[in-house]
Amino acid sequence: MHERIRASFERQGLMRHLGAELADISPGRVTIVLRSRPEVTQQHGYIHAGATSAIADSAGGYAALSVFPDDAEVLTVEYKINLLAPATGDYLEAIGTVVKSGRTLTVCHLEVFGVQGSERKLVAMGQQTLICLRQDSK
Amino acid sequence: MHERIRASFERQGLMRHLGAELADISPGRVTIVLRSRPEVTQQHGYIHAGATSAIADSAGGYAALSVFPDDAEVLTVEYKINLLAPATGDYLEAIGTVVKSGRTLTVCHLEVFGVQGSERKLVAMGQQTLICLRQDSK
Amino acid sequence: MHERIRASFERQGLMRHLGAELADISPGRVTIVLRSRPEVTQQHGYIHAGATSAIADSAGGYAALSVFPDDAEVLTVEYKINLLAPATGDYLEAIGTVVKSGRTLTVCHLEVFGVQGSERKLVAMGQQTLICLRQDSK
Amino acid sequence: MHERIRASFERQGLMRHLGAELADISPGRVTIVLRSRPEVTQQHGYIHAGATSAIADSAGGYAALSVFPDDAEVLTVEYKINLLAPATGDYLEAIGTVVKSGRTLTVCHLEVFGVQGSERKLVAMGQQTLICLRQDSK
Repeated sequence: MHERIRASFERQGLMRHLGAELADISPGRVTIVLRSRPEVTQQHGYIHAGATSAIADSAGGYAALSVFPDDAEVLTVEYKINLLAPATGDYLEAIGTVVKSGRTLTVCHLEVFGVQGSERKLVAMGQQTLICLRQDSK
Repeated sequence: MHERIRASFERQGLMRHLGAELADISPGRVTIVLRSRPEVTQQHGYIHAGATSAIADSAGGYAALSVFPDDAEVLTVEYKINLLAPATGDYLEAIGTVVKSGRTLTVCHLEVFGVQGSERKLVAMGQQTLICLRQDSK
Repeated sequence: MHERIRASFERQGLMRHLGAELADISPGRVTIVLRSRPEVTQQHGYIHAGATSAIADSAGGYAALSVFPDDAEVLTVEYKINLLAPATGDYLEAIGTVVKSGRTLTVCHLEVFGVQGSERKLVAMGQQTLICLRQDSK
Repeated sequence: MHERIRASFERQGLMRHLGAELADISPGRVTIVLRSRPEVTQQHGYIHAGATSAIADSAGGYAALSVFPDDAEVLTVEYKINLLAPATGDYLEAIGTVVKSGRTLTVCHLEVFGVQGSERKLVAMGQQTLICLRQDSK
C-alpha cells in the first residue's frame, strides 16, 4: 500500500512542481508537507489558498486510497475548505483522515497546519468526498 | 481597478509558478486561464484538482476585489468545489462571478471549463465566500 | 415521472409538516414553495436556515430524480449552502437544477428566493451532490 | 450564557415545531436532540436530511453564540454537510463545536449521531461559518 501511494504521488506533476512531499502514510491517514517559498505565495506573501488546498486535497485522496482495494483508483468528487488563518510558517503540514469509507464513496476530514519552529497552528480545515473506481467498472 | 487587479495578480507567486494568466477583468467577473502542461497534472495525467481549484479561487477573489472600494483587500473565507469531469484540454478557463456583495462578505460562483480546440466543457463548479478587509479596520 | 415525484414527495413527512408544496416539475428542474409561518422561524422571526435548506435539498433531490431511470432512487450525498440574506417574504421558492448528471453521481445548483408581492430576492444559494441507487445494486 | 441560549432557542419556531430539544450547553459546544417521528421523515422513512441539517445548523449556531460577547447575535453565513448514513434510531443527537472563533467570523465542526439503544452512529458531518453581529454595528 505504501509503495502504491508513493508511486502515484511521484506521478503527480503538480506536487513535484510545488515542492510538496509525502511525509507520512498510515491506513486511513496521510500527511503531506509543503515548504514555504516564493513560488507558492499569494499577493500578501502568505501561502496561496490554492497551494494549501492542493496539498489538503492530495492528502485526503491518498488517505482514501490507503483503505481501498488494491486494484481501485480514487477521484475527488468535491471538497469544501475554510481558510482559518493566514498560511504562514516554515512549512505547511496537510493531514487527510478517512471519516467514513463506503463501497463507492469515502469522506475525509482535512486539516492544514502552519509550522514555525516548535509552533503548530491550524490554518485550514476541510471536508472532502471521494469516489472509488474499480477496474471492473471501467 | 484593472491595474490594481493586474498588480495584485503579478504578486501571486503561485499563479506565475503554475503558468496561469489573467485573461479578462470586468466588474464582478474575472477569468483566469491555465495552459495544460506536465507541471500541473495529477497521477492520471489530468490537470490536478489543486491547480483547478487554485485558478478558480483566484478568479473568484479578483471578481470580488473588482467590486470592492479602492482601499480594500480581499481574503477567501472558504470555498466548495465539485470536480465534474476530468480536467483536460489545451487549457482551463476559470471564471469567478460575484453573486452577492455585502459590506463585509461577498459570495462568488466559480466555473472552470476545459477547452480543446472549439470544444468547451464544464469540468468544475464551486461556490466561494470572501471577506472585504478595509484599511481602517486593520 | 411527474407522478413518481409527486408520490415520493407525499411520503416526505417533513415536507408536509413544514407546509412545503411541490410547485413545478420539469426534467432536471424542480420548484418547492414554503409559506412563511411561525412554525418555520428562527429566533429573529426570519425563516430558519434549516427550513430554507430542507426545501432546497428536496428541490435538488427531485430535480436529480427527474432525470434518473424509472427504477432508480436518489440520496443526497452532501450539499453546501450560503445564506445570502434574511429569509423573509410571503413565501420561499426553492429551485433545484441539475448541472451534471452521471451514471452514479449528479450535481445540482440550488437557489432559494424570498417572494413578497411582486418582489423576488435571492436569499440562499447552494451546490449539492446526489447518488443514483439502482434496484440491481441493492 | 445558558439563559441567553435557552431563551433564543425557545424563540425558534422551527425547533419547537420539529420537536427538537437543547440537550447540553457548554462554552464552544452545544448539543441538540431530535426524536424520530413521522413528522421529520423523507420518502424512505429515514429522518429527512433537512431535519438533520436543521438541528446541526442550530447546534453550531448556539455553540458560536456561547463564545460571543453578551450583546452579540449570530447568523449562519454558510455550511456544508455530508450525509454519511441513513439517519435512523430512536433519536438524533447533533453536536456543534467551535473550531476557530475570530472577531467577525467563527467556524464550527458539526456532527450528527443516530442513537438506537446503546448504539451511537455518525450519520452526518459538516462544517459551518458564522458571523458575529454586534449591537454597535447595526
